[in-house]
Amino acid sequence: MTRLAVTEKIIETKVRKQIQWKDVAAALGLSKEWVTAGCLGQMAFSLEEAQKIGAIFDLDDMDIKWLQEVPYKGSLPESVPTDPLIYRWYELVNVYGTTIKALIHEEFGDGIMSAIDFSMKLEREPDPKGDRVSVILSGKFLPYKRY
Amino acid sequence: MTRLAVTEKIIETKVRKQIQWKDVAAALGLSKEWVTAGCLGQMAFSLEEAQKIGAIFDLDDMDIKWLQEVPYKGSLPESVPTDPLIYRWYELVNVYGTTIKALIHEEFGDGIMSAIDFSMKLEREPDPKGDRVSVILSGKFLPYKRY
Amino acid sequence: MTRLAVTEKIIETKVRKQIQWKDVAAALGLSKEWVTAGCLGQMAFSLEEAQKIGAIFDLDDMDIKWLQEVPYKGSLPESVPTDPLIYRWYELVNVYGTTIKALIHEEFGDGIMSAIDFSMKLEREPDPKGDRVSVILSGKFLPYKRY
Amino acid sequence: MTRLAVTEKIIETKVRKQIQWKDVAAALGLSKEWVTAGCLGQMAFSLEEAQKIGAIFDLDDMDIKWLQEVPYKGSLPESVPTDPLIYRWYELVNVYGTTIKALIHEEFGDGIMSAIDFSMKLEREPDPKGDRVSVILSGKFLPYKRY
Amino acid sequence: MTRLAVTEKIIETKVRKQIQWKDVAAALGLSKEWVTAGCLGQMAFSLEEAQKIGAIFDLDDMDIKWLQEVPYKGSLPESVPTDPLIYRWYELVNVYGTTIKALIHEEFGDGIMSAIDFSMKLEREPDPKGDRVSVILSGKFLPYKRY
Amino acid sequence: MTRLAVTEKIIETKVRKQIQWKDVAAALGLSKEWVTAGCLGQMAFSLEEAQKIGAIFDLDDMDIKWLQEVPYKGSLPESVPTDPLIYRWYELVNVYGTTIKALIHEEFGDGIMSAIDFSMKLEREPDPKGDRVSVILSGKFLPYKRY
Amino acid sequence: MTRLAVTEKIIETKVRKQIQWKDVAAALGLSKEWVTAGCLGQMAFSLEEAQKIGAIFDLDDMDIKWLQEVPYKGSLPESVPTDPLIYRWYELVNVYGTTIKALIHEEFGDGIMSAIDFSMKLEREPDPKGDRVSVILSGKFLPYKRY
Amino acid sequence: MTRLAVTEKIIETKVRKQIQWKDVAAALGLSKEWVTAGCLGQMAFSLEEAQKIGAIFDLDDMDIKWLQEVPYKGSLPESVPTDPLIYRWYELVNVYGTTIKALIHEEFGDGIMSAIDFSMKLEREPDPKGDRVSVILSGKFLPYKRY
Amino acid sequence: MTRLAVTEKIIETKVRKQIQWKDVAAALGLSKEWVTAGCLGQMAFSLEEAQKIGAIFDLDDMDIKWLQEVPYKGSLPESVPTDPLIYRWYELVNVYGTTIKALIHEEFGDGIMSAIDFSMKLEREPDPKGDRVSVILSGKFLPYKRY
Amino acid sequence: MTRLAVTEKIIETKVRKQIQWKDVAAALGLSKEWVTAGCLGQMAFSLEEAQKIGAIFDLDDMDIKWLQEVPYKGSLPESVPTDPLIYRWYELVNVYGTTIKALIHEEFGDGIMSAIDFSMKLEREPDPKGDRVSVILSGKFLPYKRY
Repeated sequence: MTRLAVTEKIIETKVRKQIQWKDVAAALGLSKEWVTAGCLGQMAFSLEEAQKIGAIFDLDDMDIKWLQEVPYKGSLPESVPTDPLIYRWYELVNVYGTTIKALIHEEFGDGIMSAIDFSMKLEREPDPKGDRVSVILSGKFLPYKRY
Repeated sequence: MTRLAVTEKIIETKVRKQIQWKDVAAALGLSKEWVTAGCLGQMAFSLEEAQKIGAIFDLDDMDIKWLQEVPYKGSLPESVPTDPLIYRWYELVNVYGTTIKALIHEEFGDGIMSAIDFSMKLEREPDPKGDRVSVILSGKFLPYKRY
Repeated sequence: MTRLAVTEKIIETKVRKQIQWKDVAAALGLSKEWVTAGCLGQMAFSLEEAQKIGAIFDLDDMDIKWLQEVPYKGSLPESVPTDPLIYRWYELVNVYGTTIKALIHEEFGDGIMSAIDFSMKLEREPDPKGDRVSVILSGKFLPYKRY
Repeated sequence: MTRLAVTEKIIETKVRKQIQWKDVAAALGLSKEWVTAGCLGQMAFSLEEAQKIGAIFDLDDMDIKWLQEVPYKGSLPESVPTDPLIYRWYELVNVYGTTIKALIHEEFGDGIMSAIDFSMKLEREPDPKGDRVSVILSGKFLPYKRY
Repeated sequence: MTRLAVTEKIIETKVRKQIQWKDVAAALGLSKEWVTAGCLGQMAFSLEEAQKIGAIFDLDDMDIKWLQEVPYKGSLPESVPTDPLIYRWYELVNVYGTTIKALIHEEFGDGIMSAIDFSMKLEREPDPKGDRVSVILSGKFLPYKRY
Repeated sequence: MTRLAVTEKIIETKVRKQIQWKDVAAALGLSKEWVTAGCLGQMAFSLEEAQKIGAIFDLDDMDIKWLQEVPYKGSLPESVPTDPLIYRWYELVNVYGTTIKALIHEEFGDGIMSAIDFSMKLEREPDPKGDRVSVILSGKFLPYKRY
Repeated sequence: MTRLAVTEKIIETKVRKQIQWKDVAAALGLSKEWVTAGCLGQMAFSLEEAQKIGAIFDLDDMDIKWLQEVPYKGSLPESVPTDPLIYRWYELVNVYGTTIKALIHEEFGDGIMSAIDFSMKLEREPDPKGDRVSVILSGKFLPYKRY
Repeated sequence: MTRLAVTEKIIETKVRKQIQWKDVAAALGLSKEWVTAGCLGQMAFSLEEAQKIGAIFDLDDMDIKWLQEVPYKGSLPESVPTDPLIYRWYELVNVYGTTIKALIHEEFGDGIMSAIDFSMKLEREPDPKGDRVSVILSGKFLPYKRY
Repeated sequence: MTRLAVTEKIIETKVRKQIQWKDVAAALGLSKEWVTAGCLGQMAFSLEEAQKIGAIFDLDDMDIKWLQEVPYKGSLPESVPTDPLIYRWYELVNVYGTTIKALIHEEFGDGIMSAIDFSMKLEREPDPKGDRVSVILSGKFLPYKRY
Repeated sequence: MTRLAVTEKIIETKVRKQIQWKDVAAALGLSKEWVTAGCLGQMAFSLEEAQKIGAIFDLDDMDIKWLQEVPYKGSLPESVPTDPLIYRWYELVNVYGTTIKALIHEEFGDGIMSAIDFSMKLEREPDPKGDRVSVILSGKFLPYKRY
């Protein structure tokens, strides 16, 4: 459970020192999406990355070791999220889930879109009627093996 | 519950006549993502659209009326989906949920990405290491009202 | 989880110093509904607001920083609330949910009543047969985007 | 379970004959909110009311008897609703639940807002930035009995 | 959550000093049922009552303030209770629930038996075949408002 | 599942012929509480009783045999009931559960109040401030066996 | 919750001093099944028994008082147990539940086998094909009261 | 799902012809516990046994084939059973689960009591204070393999 | 839901004609594991395969079309399976889940073992102490993409 | 709950001293699969093994005693695991569960594959298209006892 303690220390320091996730990402030379996920306890860092993060968030040696461990993933406290922003994403899966399934199978056949060989890009899309959140997801298609 | 019966009739006819979702969308002049969601019982159609869909899927007058009704939305039979393709999306929300929340708040402040004023585009992204599924989500940012 | 600690500190000080929510709201020049929600950990405050709240509830600098962070929302410990007062609201959703849905769609078409661009006003309504609680909810109608 | 069958017959006839809930309410001289809830299986009608509804929706004698029975209430198929419109209301309870509780107790002391001696009024509120849904809830305050 | 701490302090002192609930009730001049519910964190006390309870259970000033706060009610750790004594009551609701509903509606029409304007009296009923627990529940009937 | 079919047939005939539970009970010479529970599928009848019930509700021979079978008990469709009248009873268990437990143990020691050697009496209690529902529960106390 | 703390203290001392449950039972002159259940927080002890247990497990006076309190029963952390040994018992209930019900009703009529006026005896049954666990359960049959 | 249909046919015929489980068992020369479990859809029969059962319950050839199939086991409709008789067994697992675990491990070490190489014997135990249900369970102890 | 109907038809025919899964697999020239999964509604077949299966199980043209559709996967009716054989596998995940995770990460780093590019081989392993079930699972390791 | 504390201490020391599970297993002369499961709190060790583990992970005498106790097994915090690696195994049970059941019954008849008399071997399988995880499971077949 100690990786969780490192995550909480990172969040607390972020609030205290008013650090921005995009600046952390820039310091590591990686995307802000992957770096934030890692800082929030969902990814494992290399030694070098962990040391840079340690420097930014005032972590000690043991914390830096923890950052290199593969964590037990899953960032939400309930199976149906209560937070309105995160719930909207769950709602997308609920409303559009069978649509996504139908269209991927129509295009690719039986298989899945990988959530491992996967990247995400989240950006502001200016719009006179109110800016939009634009998210680009890219996952490798993996066909079911027949044997 | 009768809208569900229309959905099942559409799916059965699609299998029998080997109809493609993209062709249905083309006949309506709308995106394949929105049209498929509607055919799968998640959106309401206009009279004209419902009639075109009725012609494609051999629906009767009552079915066409149902297609114009706002449905009770939610396309999945359980709160944690069992289908591997749809589960991968649920997993994205679970693993990346707090990351998405953190980055949207960093960029926009308190509020949500709308799942109503929202569009989705799903495409094949050719890649020599194996083609990828590319999905672009675009939702209006809605700030929390203060009063 | 530290925002939660600030919420608990606020509640404890409120009990000790016998502070009224409406007085907190008056000090901020905002509605008592929104301010109470914020103090109970559901909204993010501006710097100036957070400082005023800090002064009222004897908070330290770090607490005041936390008040400006967007919290993980959701104020109830279970998906079906056990507290009788809160349960009555859940019961309203359960008994009247489909009615609300039917009437909004009859008036507006497919879409939702926003819970973000939203305000609430709660007041005592004097009545000789026993006073009533009057609540006015106002949420922007958001139509489903077609694309 | 037969009251449910009457509800489904009413909904089906409504779609077929394109009946509006507000017209049904007008024919009964009652609010559209209460009448719709009754037609959707949540309230019991008097004989006279049931006969008027029977005439509108082509119901037989047995159906009209069922409309006078007190139903097993609860209109949603899951404890956390999946439909986006209804979920927004559940979200209000989740986000604002403790706020509502705090403010009612501050004003009235220990007790609840009745969901039985209760009325609701749902209206369109024109707004140049987009029309709003306005809902007025009025419930008798019931103090806890001490004995 | 501090009201919970006061409840735990009361229970601990009760065990240590071997206090009886009926004696606490007698000291307050109220029923043992309501007083016990209050001491177990389900009701709010007046200042005078809280002070008497404080004297009996060695509480400090802050605890006495907490006793006057309306608590978040709900005394059980799970939705289906595991304790055999409490489960038997849950079983009554499960087995006799529809019977109670049918008989109240037959006698009173649509409405509920209040759990707020409510009292309970629990007594030993001597019986040669083994003493019985006798419980008298009395709740105001509240008819559904029509509007 | 066929006992359930008999229950549904009884309910349907009751609505059609406008039968009262208390009249059924009078015909059998038993309490209306126990007889209603039996007709709603929670108790087993003797041959003679089953024949009387069969005569009242137009049942056939096979139905009358089913009424003599011990049913799979449990009359509610969910573990937390949605019907407001039945929910109030669940709420009593939730709010008063630990109180009931504490008072029974204070009076009787470790054990339970039987839900099998148990009777219930439900009556109208006239009251100028609004009539009340009075329910008397009587269950044998069963001490835990020590061995 | 302090009874739980006594249970944990007992378990810790048992591990440290390598105490056997059967020796504790012998010291009390009661069955090992009932005594173990009590030590694991499911039964209340008499003063004399509690003092003997206190001597064996190095408990202080307050702990000994707690042992005489009736506990909130239920020894498992989830409704479907994860521990393989305990799960096998849950599986018995799942696979044989309706069989047990059918056979008891065939022999005794409507009623239950008491879990309160109940005893259990667990022993090793030598067997050349591998020793067996033999468990004898004995519970009083309680017929449903008719009234 | 067709094995379930055979189970329902058996139960219906049992009610119609008033067959006793013990007579079915005698006809097969096996225990009433195992035979009842099989008839209730939890065990697979041999061809000869299935034919005897078919003769007793008026089954056709296809039904007799189904009786020889290994069924999907699990006889209860919910994870926490609502029927009072079956619930008492679930309660035993809940209250005595850790006791059973502790005593088996004390006697045998790490491992389980098999629910497969298992037998059960259920009998009436005459008792002047009220007859008792006696159940003898016997399961092979299976030690965890070390490797 | 019609794919489910094809699965049920296949199972029924299998029982009637006493077909073996391994013979179906041999007729298709594929493994019995993959073919059985497909016949049980978890995989999509090619046209040629579907026709062969149709011939074996007496399916009509529409059924054969359904066999070529990608199904909504998930073969179990509950999230924790009740069938003892399948539960043992769930137990393996519960008891050994963190072990499997630890060992794969120790050998491969952060990533997963694919359940898509995956094969399974199930065989009898003769053993004088009782034959064993041997299962070989082989899944491609997929490292988390960094970006 | 103290066995859990030993598990956490082991994990923390492993991270600090960068210990490999396979080296721990080698020191004990047992498989890495069983030893890791034991270190993660799922198996009981002998005195000698516990002392070796204590030496490797800097444990004290009390910890070493705990390692010899049979733990309450179950290594996952939820019934449906959120961690992607462990979820893939749960998905296998969900997708292939009925297939595994069908094939074992076809080969062995009614019974189960033991999860107790069971071993597991996890290895890297080199593959030019990307290395694979190979897992060999071997469990004794246990036929259902007939009696």
